[in-house]
Amino acid sequence: MLGEFELIRHYFAAAACAQAADGVVLGIGDDCALLEVPVDEQLAVSTDTLVAGVHFPADAAGLLLGQRALAVSVSDLAAMGAAPLAFTLALTLPDAAPDWLADFTAGLESMARHCGVHLIGGDTTRGPLSLTLTVFGRVPKGLALTRAGARAGDLLCVGGSLGDAAGALPFVLGEQPLREDANALLAHYWSPSPQLALGQALRGLATAALDISDGLLADCGHIARASGVALIVEQQRLPLSAALRACAGDETARQLALAGGDDYVLAFTLPAEKLDGLRAMGQPVHVIGRVEAGQGVHLQDAEGRAIQPLQRGYQHFGSQRD
Amino acid sequence: MLGEFELIRHYFAAAACAQAADGVVLGIGDDCALLEVPVDEQLAVSTDTLVAGVHFPADAAGLLLGQRALAVSVSDLAAMGAAPLAFTLALTLPDAAPDWLADFTAGLESMARHCGVHLIGGDTTRGPLSLTLTVFGRVPKGLALTRAGARAGDLLCVGGSLGDAAGALPFVLGEQPLREDANALLAHYWSPSPQLALGQALRGLATAALDISDGLLADCGHIARASGVALIVEQQRLPLSAALRACAGDETARQLALAGGDDYVLAFTLPAEKLDGLRAMGQPVHVIGRVEAGQGVHLQDAEGRAIQPLQRGYQHFGSQRD
Repeated sequence: MLGEFELIRHYFAAAACAQAADGVVLGIGDDCALLEVPVDEQLAVSTDTLVAGVHFPADAAGLLLGQRALAVSVSDLAAMGAAPLAFTLALTLPDAAPDWLADFTAGLESMARHCGVHLIGGDTTRGPLSLTLTVFGRVPKGLALTRAGARAGDLLCVGGSLGDAAGALPFVLGEQPLREDANALLAHYWSPSPQLALGQALRGLATAALDISDGLLADCGHIARASGVALIVEQQRLPLSAALRACAGDETARQLALAGGDDYVLAFTLPAEKLDGLRAMGQPVHVIGRVEAGQGVHLQDAEGRAIQPLQRGYQHFGSQRD
Repeated sequence: MLGEFELIRHYFAAAACAQAADGVVLGIGDDCALLEVPVDEQLAVSTDTLVAGVHFPADAAGLLLGQRALAVSVSDLAAMGAAPLAFTLALTLPDAAPDWLADFTAGLESMARHCGVHLIGGDTTRGPLSLTLTVFGRVPKGLALTRAGARAGDLLCVGGSLGDAAGALPFVLGEQPLREDANALLAHYWSPSPQLALGQALRGLATAALDISDGLLADCGHIARASGVALIVEQQRLPLSAALRACAGDETARQLALAGGDDYVLAFTLPAEKLDGLRAMGQPVHVIGRVEAGQGVHLQDAEGRAIQPLQRGYQHFGSQRD
């Protein structure tokens, strides 16, 4: 006789890719899944947890949560230049509400198809709502993008507009009434699109990369530290979407682009001579600054004068996010 | 400026194996870790979640929880015949209590050394206490032990005494006063020893294997279903420890061995002609029954008469464990 949680496990097993995907030897249903990695590749692995009331509203729609949780995790694969392969899902639930689960699984499956990634295992447990996803990707040996290779003289670039997810927060939280031009922001928050093609295109070109989850300034700090360089951000070059400017106004939009989190857009450093080639591949590239000798992250205005950012930390859902 | 949770991350980073282990190309600190798998091997992956108040008491000592959480996860590698390589830890904590964290890390490190496994990444978040571990192991291609190969005529075996962890529960929960002969049971509960050497010895010998987490009868049901066979358990052959018999009495000890969970002892099916060879390797083997054509799990007495087990489900910490 199956308990309700064992039924959930069967539910996910049915949702998992039935036929073995390339590289997945054994999927859900045994003590372990089995993966194979070609001899000239490495396996990239990343784990992320999302907790209800901390990383997303406790009453979040299952569909939105399912797609967002997977996208957030797969974004780490994009940041390494890895091609998605598989993921495990550890789902903790207070109870087994069938409608919510059906919605959640639909969201998860939709994002899994979009990213080309297969559910290979996990665990379903009873407890306060949270999710831990571990994602697996493949990357040619020696070509993974780390945070550690930025060199003075490189350009500092991002792969898309910044601050949109942070701009969506007042609407996510119901602090502001919904308006039509907020839809693009909400889409960015609930269904970020991991920049997988860009990450793979950056292999062998970018000297350092990561995905922006904690806000541009905070995440640039990670590259600066790991690479032992200074990053200069030119404020007037920040790419801001029309929707964000309309909803938040120019000044707030700029603040959100600098310090708002959850963008899941790639930030990377690039030797200047690689820029044209990357653009010719059709990849989105916004140059927002440069790498210099030194340390730290420095914000400048159009005349090269230092600007003290209002906030370096990040503005997330919940004041206690970590 | 680092927040308290970022400090925790640094803490774990320091705890992680500093030099790259064989197979670990990049550890903690970037968007992903990077693993390499030799061309003649596969990577075994398993994810487990433990939730406070469901899988362990919310006031559990950090040291015990750290070692138990890792042991429980590594046991899945043992069940596949895999050699441990690495793990990620997603830790959700209500707050950052330094003493508890130091204890937890010490327990985790101690079990990591014991199992030969390296922390390569994870996430630390704020929320109700829970842990999700994902473990990675290596197994030669085609030699992983699954649940699906048991054949009529095989012996049914386990790798050690059963019911000890379930026998420890009244003491873990404080329902019974501590007594000296309960120490062996508590050790089994808090610090199970994954049967890694046994699992690797079973490669190419056992036809099916798993680790007993939900109780012998329930887990044998998984082998029976996956293999399309019937498993016969001979009740008088169940290996019971002296400590369990002393603390619980013979009748309860037998019930705990059949239906108690958290043993993390391997159960496996073995062609009879392989038995002597396995014992000659010094591996612990207890024959407790046999595989027959049919389906389901059947309990018999010494004369081969069917016994109806009192309880097929499993007795865990918390009535709502899943």
